[in-house]
Amino acid sequence: MRLATLLGPDLKALQADPEALRDAFREFHPEDVAELLDDLPEKDVAELLKALPTEMAADFLERLPVEKQHDIVELLEDRDAVELLTEMDPDDRADFIEELEDHEQKALLEKLGEADPELVEETQELLRYDPYTAGGLMTTEYVGLAPETKVWEAIEEVRRHAREGEAETVYYIYVVGYGDKLLGVVSLRDLILSEASQAIADIMTEKVVKVESTTEQEEVARVIARYDLPVIPVVDEHEVLVGVVTVDDVVDVVIEEATEDAQRMGGMVPLDESYFATGFFELVWKRGIWLVVLFFGQFLTATVMESNEAALSTMVELAIFIPLIISTGGNAGSQSSTLIIRALSIGEASPRDWYRILGREVLMGVALGVMVAGIGFARAYFAGDRVEPLELGLTVGVSIVAVVITATVVGSMVPLLMRRVGLDPAVSSTPFIASLVDVLGLLVYFAVARSIVGAFVG
Amino acid sequence: MRLATLLGPDLKALQADPEALRDAFREFHPEDVAELLDDLPEKDVAELLKALPTEMAADFLERLPVEKQHDIVELLEDRDAVELLTEMDPDDRADFIEELEDHEQKALLEKLGEADPELVEETQELLRYDPYTAGGLMTTEYVGLAPETKVWEAIEEVRRHAREGEAETVYYIYVVGYGDKLLGVVSLRDLILSEASQAIADIMTEKVVKVESTTEQEEVARVIARYDLPVIPVVDEHEVLVGVVTVDDVVDVVIEEATEDAQRMGGMVPLDESYFATGFFELVWKRGIWLVVLFFGQFLTATVMESNEAALSTMVELAIFIPLIISTGGNAGSQSSTLIIRALSIGEASPRDWYRILGREVLMGVALGVMVAGIGFARAYFAGDRVEPLELGLTVGVSIVAVVITATVVGSMVPLLMRRVGLDPAVSSTPFIASLVDVLGLLVYFAVARSIVGAFVG
Repeated sequence: MRLATLLGPDLKALQADPEALRDAFREFHPEDVAELLDDLPEKDVAELLKALPTEMAADFLERLPVEKQHDIVELLEDRDAVELLTEMDPDDRADFIEELEDHEQKALLEKLGEADPELVEETQELLRYDPYTAGGLMTTEYVGLAPETKVWEAIEEVRRHAREGEAETVYYIYVVGYGDKLLGVVSLRDLILSEASQAIADIMTEKVVKVESTTEQEEVARVIARYDLPVIPVVDEHEVLVGVVTVDDVVDVVIEEATEDAQRMGGMVPLDESYFATGFFELVWKRGIWLVVLFFGQFLTATVMESNEAALSTMVELAIFIPLIISTGGNAGSQSSTLIIRALSIGEASPRDWYRILGREVLMGVALGVMVAGIGFARAYFAGDRVEPLELGLTVGVSIVAVVITATVVGSMVPLLMRRVGLDPAVSSTPFIASLVDVLGLLVYFAVARSIVGAFVG
Repeated sequence: MRLATLLGPDLKALQADPEALRDAFREFHPEDVAELLDDLPEKDVAELLKALPTEMAADFLERLPVEKQHDIVELLEDRDAVELLTEMDPDDRADFIEELEDHEQKALLEKLGEADPELVEETQELLRYDPYTAGGLMTTEYVGLAPETKVWEAIEEVRRHAREGEAETVYYIYVVGYGDKLLGVVSLRDLILSEASQAIADIMTEKVVKVESTTEQEEVARVIARYDLPVIPVVDEHEVLVGVVTVDDVVDVVIEEATEDAQRMGGMVPLDESYFATGFFELVWKRGIWLVVLFFGQFLTATVMESNEAALSTMVELAIFIPLIISTGGNAGSQSSTLIIRALSIGEASPRDWYRILGREVLMGVALGVMVAGIGFARAYFAGDRVEPLELGLTVGVSIVAVVITATVVGSMVPLLMRRVGLDPAVSSTPFIASLVDVLGLLVYFAVARSIVGAFVG
């Protein structure tokens, strides 16, 4: 907890002595410093960053949430802001600019251009990509060398790059031909194992696992996980190397995607930020919109109930088992949809597998339905009063089997359908499936009741 | 699809010519070969692996599911099996042995011991750790050097290690003192940037981000993601370096954990394998057990309904809105539990935050409840028949507000309680919360109905 202490009363004293401040911060991981800065008022952070060497300040700044970055940079003078942005990693800088209003973007890029025109070009290049694709995730900091480069020259080049660049991107050297076309890859490990005078073309691996700049980030994560890669090259449609994505960014993507999926599956619009960081009214909106949509959907349950009012008033016992039956359907449907949504999201299943899944889920519905129906029959048999025990028991038992089969089929097929028509399967959330099954379940229940009670009466 | 063709009719011909077979396979990434082998019968895979150089065969074998590995190795002669296991990565070998029966473990370790006693020691070391901890994830393949080692010696050592070892673990060199105590870390990047004659102690970073061998795998993933590390050292309780975990294994852990969480939240026992790889009866069991438990829980809804039979038979309109009201509660509860379970699982919230969360969720319940209740009031107002429209409308509206508040409170507090008592919060699945809210919702509904209708009648 020394870091927390450091930012307490000593802070003002340290600010007067930039060297001591820098040395104090150097003791800690930038990620830990950033977490602490995130809790300080923007004004104090701006003061602090100004007192630090620009490179160090940029290292902290780029780890803060983008919103906070904006608020802080606004408090700086133009000259300081431009210096700081120049020192940021290219992908973080692009993220910073991406989130600004159009006119702010233009003004900032102009100011950056006065300082370093090349940097603006690089940034505009990155801004062209959708942030949720490989292009949006990648950085342009990598080592790309011509095939005739000698091993010793390559090591020199790595050394030069490593002095400034990020650590992780110097372990793979990309061999590029005319117009930066990707020809192969050499690891630093290969380099230090080879003769100094060999050309890198002779030791490179030509089968390079790569992604296109338009590849979606989930797919990038899948490829990186599948091939256990620390870094993956990104090419355009002409096989030209445009950047690299590192695995640490992918870990963040996987965690983010899992959270978004969970929230969609929980029946709400996914949050952009964490639970506590999301404003109350934004949360009301993102939950309320789905709650209202589902509520209107549920109107159908009331309609089905109304059209069976006569049956209900003559046999009130029928009403007693309604929550039990429709909820059991909802639970079975929720299991199916969860399984299929996850299988889709990790790439195990695709809409083409629908018949295999359908067959399996119908059988699953029969097995689960029979299992639960036995218990339901017994419960209903001993509840009969105005209705005959056997009639009520059978109505409940048969309904459960039918409702559970309906639920497993709906729960498994709807996510596949969503994916097929290009929607996110996780939108077919547990509440959505449960609502659908509620309506279908009531229809099934009343149909079964009518035919069984009718049969006995007849 | 050339790989698929390769494994077709040409396979028999290639088996006769091991050299051609080896060259053919070398064209592809081992991960792709493994996927194809996974679809072949065990007997054919065993034949193939025997024809390949042991190192290559081990590289394919360790990428198959452990069950399949067992089936294949059983078909090999002892001598071949031992050779193959010797070539496997230490962590994969430990996983292979971990899953065997006790007596099989003992027999195999004995046979391995005849070939290489040191290997058995290393494996037994790894077997000592819980597979879901840092110790279970780690590999013992890393470079650890004494602090007085010169930079040029260290590079030589890395070179020696890289000739055999895995690529990713040679980029970080751990500086260890007496008894392998972890003193610092040097990256290969630091090495190539430093003077050849410097001691590594002079260039090492002493603040090493590390985990303990007993740290749970979710926590390892969190630390690696937070600090963007490609590899993290694992120490025992005396700060002795015992292994390293690489980020690619962590990506797999994160994906696995997200799937397990999703399945738990979908109301079932998480699967050990993927959807298609899980046997039908195992799936029936893992889904059925929860379905039955929840079904018994739902009995309470029938009981509540029975005890209000009189009210229901005099005012059958009351029954009409039951599915609508309890499902809306279920949906709101599902949103809350999803948000809190995710916040717990990414480390954003902890049970200590309960009062902050409670306050927020009560207000959220009021806001969401009022929003939906307005619509519900209108729907019920125009459905009245034997009951007065206003009475029915108010009963439905007020119930919805009360049920939604109950739902947000239950949905947010139950996961916190689960974590507090040491259970996985994801066990408080959407179906579980929905079932709980069903029962509470009915109690609320009938209580509200009685007091409102009573008030009007009185």
